[in-house]
Amino acid sequence: MSGAYVHGYHAREHERLQDQAGTLVELLHSDTAYPAGSRVLEAGCGVGAQTVTLCRRSPDAHFTSIDHSPESIGEARRRADSAGLTNVELRQADIFAPPFATGSFDHVFVCFVLEHLARPVEALEILRDQLRPGGTITVIEGDHGSAYFHPDSPAAHDAIRCQVELQRAAGGDSLIGRQLFPLMIEAGIGSVRVSPRMVYVDSSRADLVEGFTRRTFTAMIEGVREQAIAAGLIEPGRFDAGVRALHRTTEADGVFCYTFFKGVGERSLGRSRSRGTGRPLVD
Amino acid sequence: MSGAYVHGYHAREHERLQDQAGTLVELLHSDTAYPAGSRVLEAGCGVGAQTVTLCRRSPDAHFTSIDHSPESIGEARRRADSAGLTNVELRQADIFAPPFATGSFDHVFVCFVLEHLARPVEALEILRDQLRPGGTITVIEGDHGSAYFHPDSPAAHDAIRCQVELQRAAGGDSLIGRQLFPLMIEAGIGSVRVSPRMVYVDSSRADLVEGFTRRTFTAMIEGVREQAIAAGLIEPGRFDAGVRALHRTTEADGVFCYTFFKGVGERSLGRSRSRGTGRPLVD
Repeated sequence: MSGAYVHGYHAREHERLQDQAGTLVELLHSDTAYPAGSRVLEAGCGVGAQTVTLCRRSPDAHFTSIDHSPESIGEARRRADSAGLTNVELRQADIFAPPFATGSFDHVFVCFVLEHLARPVEALEILRDQLRPGGTITVIEGDHGSAYFHPDSPAAHDAIRCQVELQRAAGGDSLIGRQLFPLMIEAGIGSVRVSPRMVYVDSSRADLVEGFTRRTFTAMIEGVREQAIAAGLIEPGRFDAGVRALHRTTEADGVFCYTFFKGVGERSLGRSRSRGTGRPLVD
Repeated sequence: MSGAYVHGYHAREHERLQDQAGTLVELLHSDTAYPAGSRVLEAGCGVGAQTVTLCRRSPDAHFTSIDHSPESIGEARRRADSAGLTNVELRQADIFAPPFATGSFDHVFVCFVLEHLARPVEALEILRDQLRPGGTITVIEGDHGSAYFHPDSPAAHDAIRCQVELQRAAGGDSLIGRQLFPLMIEAGIGSVRVSPRMVYVDSSRADLVEGFTRRTFTAMIEGVREQAIAAGLIEPGRFDAGVRALHRTTEADGVFCYTFFKGVGERSLGRSRSRGTGRPLVD
């Protein structure tokens, strides 16, 4: 991993990721289910926010979920245990140097990971090579440039921009959702199909007002306050005005929009595009 | 109508509206069909870009399509005739003073109209009163603030902003799509449900690259070039760079996103919220 994980590793962040997974399950996961007996690699599982959903939706598939952070893997393991999962192995490992033979998996699943990587195409190439020929890879990412709302607010956009700039300074890209198609193509993945998953929130959708606008998106922006101010990206008053404006969109006449992107492709049959540099692609 | 119709009335604009309707028919219309015998008011039909689709999808409903511009009605009539429509009456009339008794219609349909109005809530109130109690109103609008793309380009956003500012100067609102829910609620429309209709375009979707990114959205932005420069909103070089950047998103690694919003509500049974000012709400 290049740079720090901008969202941090605090208890509140765990809660946010859990909220996010809970609210968005249908939107993001409803068309992902793996056949009985298939071997699935979840790359970058973090604290396991998606793992429980993934494993429950495909109870007869065998999951291997990896993350580079031992602390995250520990938390993911506790979560899997308390959910009673029996079809997942959790393991500390680096996406850029997975400890498995090439072609070990039927499917790969990557969710909210590429946004943090300085070399997302390399990651995708390596993950593609973890697939048997014909195996599929599913990638889900958000895109913070997809956030717009009513009432509109320049301060809110400035606060969001802080998150985007911090992510960029950490080597990542918060605007990656819209780029999934070209990134997957560049990584030599075949039959790529990307579909947007738009979260539209007005006050008739109380679950999303609370679960998405407040506790997922706005909480994430609030979470970078100290970093953003310390980095000189924004004045405290401006940041706080932006956060207030985001909360304002949760009132009766407010609207909030955000889009996730989900890409699915496959390792083409008989095709190999392993990189020829001869050096291990560790990070 | 307040101010000028910012898109203009030229032949190219007619073509653009036709392209837009052709490409987006399924996305916008697939869930709109009216029962046999029902009376439908299409308010602000313009040159009839939606009229042919509407009437064909509900061949046994009776449509009345109005527009304030006699020229547009003339063009819409020619189009309806050449499509062989027999279930539509085209008529010059003002949305703010419709020449029909209240409660005359079972359904109202309004598409790409509110964005041009200085008083969209009043328009909705008047249209609501054209409905029998329990009748439905369907509203479709775009939102130019929903446009984002890859590669990203500040110049492209500046060029888009010119269209937004010209629309605003003409009394309209190019960011109206996201506001449909609160506007319809404010107009006293009941059971409002808004759904986004996102157009996602990557190079695997050749029809949309050509039909939407190039010939609908970018053509619309290009169409305000002279006005924007004359109004001092932008330097010619900057505008042209923005348009080039929009075309750039149609290349193999480019992506373009835009969202329409569709709201459906009804005139509540036995409820009347006619405005009590006592004066006719003509424009």
